[in-house]
Amino acid sequence: MRIIKSVSEMQSYADSLRMAGNTIGFVPTMGALHEGHLSLIRKSIEKTDKTILSIFVNPTQFSPSEDFGKYPRDFERDEKLAEDLNVDVIFYPSKEAIYHDGHSTYTIVEGLSAQLEGESRPSHFKGVSTVVNKLFNIVKPHIAFFGQKDAQQALIIKKMTADLNLDIDIFVCPTIREDDGLAMSSRNIYLSPDSRKQAPLIHQALKEAESLHLNGEKNPEMLIRKITDTLNSAPIARIDYLSIVNSETLLPVESTNEGALVVVAVFFEKTRLIDNILLTTSK
Amino acid sequence: MRIIKSVSEMQSYADSLRMAGNTIGFVPTMGALHEGHLSLIRKSIEKTDKTILSIFVNPTQFSPSEDFGKYPRDFERDEKLAEDLNVDVIFYPSKEAIYHDGHSTYTIVEGLSAQLEGESRPSHFKGVSTVVNKLFNIVKPHIAFFGQKDAQQALIIKKMTADLNLDIDIFVCPTIREDDGLAMSSRNIYLSPDSRKQAPLIHQALKEAESLHLNGEKNPEMLIRKITDTLNSAPIARIDYLSIVNSETLLPVESTNEGALVVVAVFFEKTRLIDNILLTTSK
Repeated sequence: MRIIKSVSEMQSYADSLRMAGNTIGFVPTMGALHEGHLSLIRKSIEKTDKTILSIFVNPTQFSPSEDFGKYPRDFERDEKLAEDLNVDVIFYPSKEAIYHDGHSTYTIVEGLSAQLEGESRPSHFKGVSTVVNKLFNIVKPHIAFFGQKDAQQALIIKKMTADLNLDIDIFVCPTIREDDGLAMSSRNIYLSPDSRKQAPLIHQALKEAESLHLNGEKNPEMLIRKITDTLNSAPIARIDYLSIVNSETLLPVESTNEGALVVVAVFFEKTRLIDNILLTTSK
Repeated sequence: MRIIKSVSEMQSYADSLRMAGNTIGFVPTMGALHEGHLSLIRKSIEKTDKTILSIFVNPTQFSPSEDFGKYPRDFERDEKLAEDLNVDVIFYPSKEAIYHDGHSTYTIVEGLSAQLEGESRPSHFKGVSTVVNKLFNIVKPHIAFFGQKDAQQALIIKKMTADLNLDIDIFVCPTIREDDGLAMSSRNIYLSPDSRKQAPLIHQALKEAESLHLNGEKNPEMLIRKITDTLNSAPIARIDYLSIVNSETLLPVESTNEGALVVVAVFFEKTRLIDNILLTTSK
């Protein structure tokens, strides 16, 4: 397994892989790898010839009040996990390699970036779409892999890729959960023991809404009320947003018939967790 | 010479050129080819294995009050000129092929886009950088060629390419002029006979400033006064902006010692012409 830190070396290596006829799979991460990331890597290895994992904690997607400084970093552990899965390259650049002095170009997906997460975290998606566009230009993948846990992010990356004519397939993989239903996230380690005990209620509440929906309840307000009640039974939980939206436009739906997405962000003390569930018409 | 109208066909063809070991040169244009464009094409043919010319009048860089509708279009003439120069491919997409319904992603070079042209034409460079980024992703060139006549545009494209880690060299070619000094532009055909007669005064004024500078005048205000006087001797001319700026940052300079760029936009009746001259320390 190669570890590449330089942008130009990564680009040349990607060129040489392509010239040799390989398809390149790409899994962009901020490190602190968990089973969710590993499922993306496994999918990439299954579907492509060479898998490149990037590890870069992207400063531009954090606001000054957020956890950029204390975001979990453990390169040696990540490296071991990647090696065990037969990743071909880890692209592991410094902050300076990605953002040179005077960097001032941004890739902005208007519309989709403003709502939900974007409302709670202004400029977050500007940072995400910019860094992913940059990483795409550096790693030159044929297919890139993202998790459904960050549903809005996956949608924004798909939209950016289509709108900018990036010749890359975006593959979205299912959310991976702990045994008790909590969605895997690098931020779960921030949870206090009490919060950790109560956090699985998020998934439980979404599953209850799904079940009501499958039993015929199509009124988003009724489903939102039910989810709110369940979440309120966790004394520590504080809902940041909860909405039932069209899974393409992210705009609120009036009825849950048309493949609606239930999206939620919940604070447990200072830790903000997000999750979602896609409502289908049958199970 | 191939004419390709489909985005995916252009991408596949670019891939096949690259797989065969060719370097790709790219000349993006809005058609209405003149000697300026042809000089870019010749340079591309000299420096690369395959030259791709795009012809696309980009709606997003025109404001509603500008000349998108009447911008000169003559594909057959352009095709003949390209064929005579041995262009390999003309990429000639429809508006719908480039901007699908609901397109909402923009590439924005902050800072450089706001001043000079950007002040007179708000959102112009947002359209330019977005379409060039898209065309880069479609044509996949190794080198792209731009004209120094649009100095600010060339600088913004260079900045975008560096900031987004696009693996493309940007090559800027000198302004090509009519015998009387008027910079070649597709918009020159709009000029009335009287305006056409007076328009070479722009270049004449810039040359006078250059000559003063070479003779030791380093005060931008003095040079601007001289240029203004000369331009005012053309009864039809109306200065839109005139500034002496740093050739990298486009910010006004206090002295013309450090490779300053004189940039000017002048209206002749409804037609707006731009030009510039780089002040060097020796000739």
